[in-house]
Amino acid sequence: MADRKSASRPAAPRRPDTSRRSEKSRRAIYEAALALVAEVGYPKTTIEGIAARAGVGKQTIYRWWSSKADVLLEAFLDLGDQAARAAERSAGRAGDPQAYAIPDTGDLAADLKAVLRATVDELRDPRFEAPSRALAAEGVVNEELGRVFVAKLLEPSLQLYVDRLRSAQEAGQVRPDIDPRIALELFVSPLAQRWLQHTAPISHAYTDTLVDYALHGLAPR
Amino acid sequence: MADRKSASRPAAPRRPDTSRRSEKSRRAIYEAALALVAEVGYPKTTIEGIAARAGVGKQTIYRWWSSKADVLLEAFLDLGDQAARAAERSAGRAGDPQAYAIPDTGDLAADLKAVLRATVDELRDPRFEAPSRALAAEGVVNEELGRVFVAKLLEPSLQLYVDRLRSAQEAGQVRPDIDPRIALELFVSPLAQRWLQHTAPISHAYTDTLVDYALHGLAPR
Repeated sequence: MADRKSASRPAAPRRPDTSRRSEKSRRAIYEAALALVAEVGYPKTTIEGIAARAGVGKQTIYRWWSSKADVLLEAFLDLGDQAARAAERSAGRAGDPQAYAIPDTGDLAADLKAVLRATVDELRDPRFEAPSRALAAEGVVNEELGRVFVAKLLEPSLQLYVDRLRSAQEAGQVRPDIDPRIALELFVSPLAQRWLQHTAPISHAYTDTLVDYALHGLAPR
Repeated sequence: MADRKSASRPAAPRRPDTSRRSEKSRRAIYEAALALVAEVGYPKTTIEGIAARAGVGKQTIYRWWSSKADVLLEAFLDLGDQAARAAERSAGRAGDPQAYAIPDTGDLAADLKAVLRATVDELRDPRFEAPSRALAAEGVVNEELGRVFVAKLLEPSLQLYVDRLRSAQEAGQVRPDIDPRIALELFVSPLAQRWLQHTAPISHAYTDTLVDYALHGLAPR
């Protein structure tokens, strides 16, 4: 959840034998894995099914990954990297090592609103939505898988909010006694719950409101 | 999610033929339905399986309910009613028509903290946790089912927070321009996401912190 762009996430593995042909197979495997989990759910997704759909032998998959959870994890990391690279290009920041971070223009509210608006757009992107839902649903009932995916996919994104809130604390825009790891949940978790549980619609106006409420509180000032 | 106690939820149906024997069957069916969905998940839970486990004929189930979703919905409502009645008894409020509402002692922070602490305890109760997770997971990928369960189970609980926040607005403790339906998400959704996605532990200290952050905001005052 939240944006999948992460500076701290490990890079997709590069093996010495990565030729154009194996890169093409790797892409086909990622796409097959994401499509399959979206269509039949995590429990019914198999290495055999991914191989058949990608048009590769299942030994090709086993040579590179040890389990379907591994394949899916890398497929999601790759999906996030693609989205991040597209965002970098459109922002003219290709190759910028800070491109993954939440912007720091000095206006905390504006920076948080911009990132959350982009997350709303991503959550509504069909390429992202169906496989993410399948994985999130499995993570609810399969604690071990849920914890792996949270640690590798979700938490690195959340740490970008921690970094931005810390810098706001240094600038005196957030109280020094606030724990940033809890504070970020005031705007990230409501969006996550509406999306996951279909409790209410999501929109840019909604996430803007969350940021305003979280920064200024509900009580009169 | 959040507490399941709800004044506005419909009462469990009372049929004219409800004898002690059929009441016993109804309880057995609820328990079988909750146990089965916890063990095998929603897709593999069947009316036949519930009937076999409850020791009743499947026609008994079809006489009272039209689908497994209906059986599960009422089983969850009944589980929530049992918890609410136990809470009423322990609070000496048995039969009090206001027993479902969030208390209004005049101290908004204290009242919200008390309800959220009770919700943390409920989320950790094994009787509640496994079937709730199975249902929540299905709701993530099955939008139609998710929306029905949100409308009948979750939203009535959330409306209790709306009522309490409105009364705080009347008392001048919450700004008049705040939308209570969004505001409640600042403390309810973080707890929901930690529980659903295993992102971090839940505790009374954690929900107390959420209430303090939500009421007073992150920015210096």
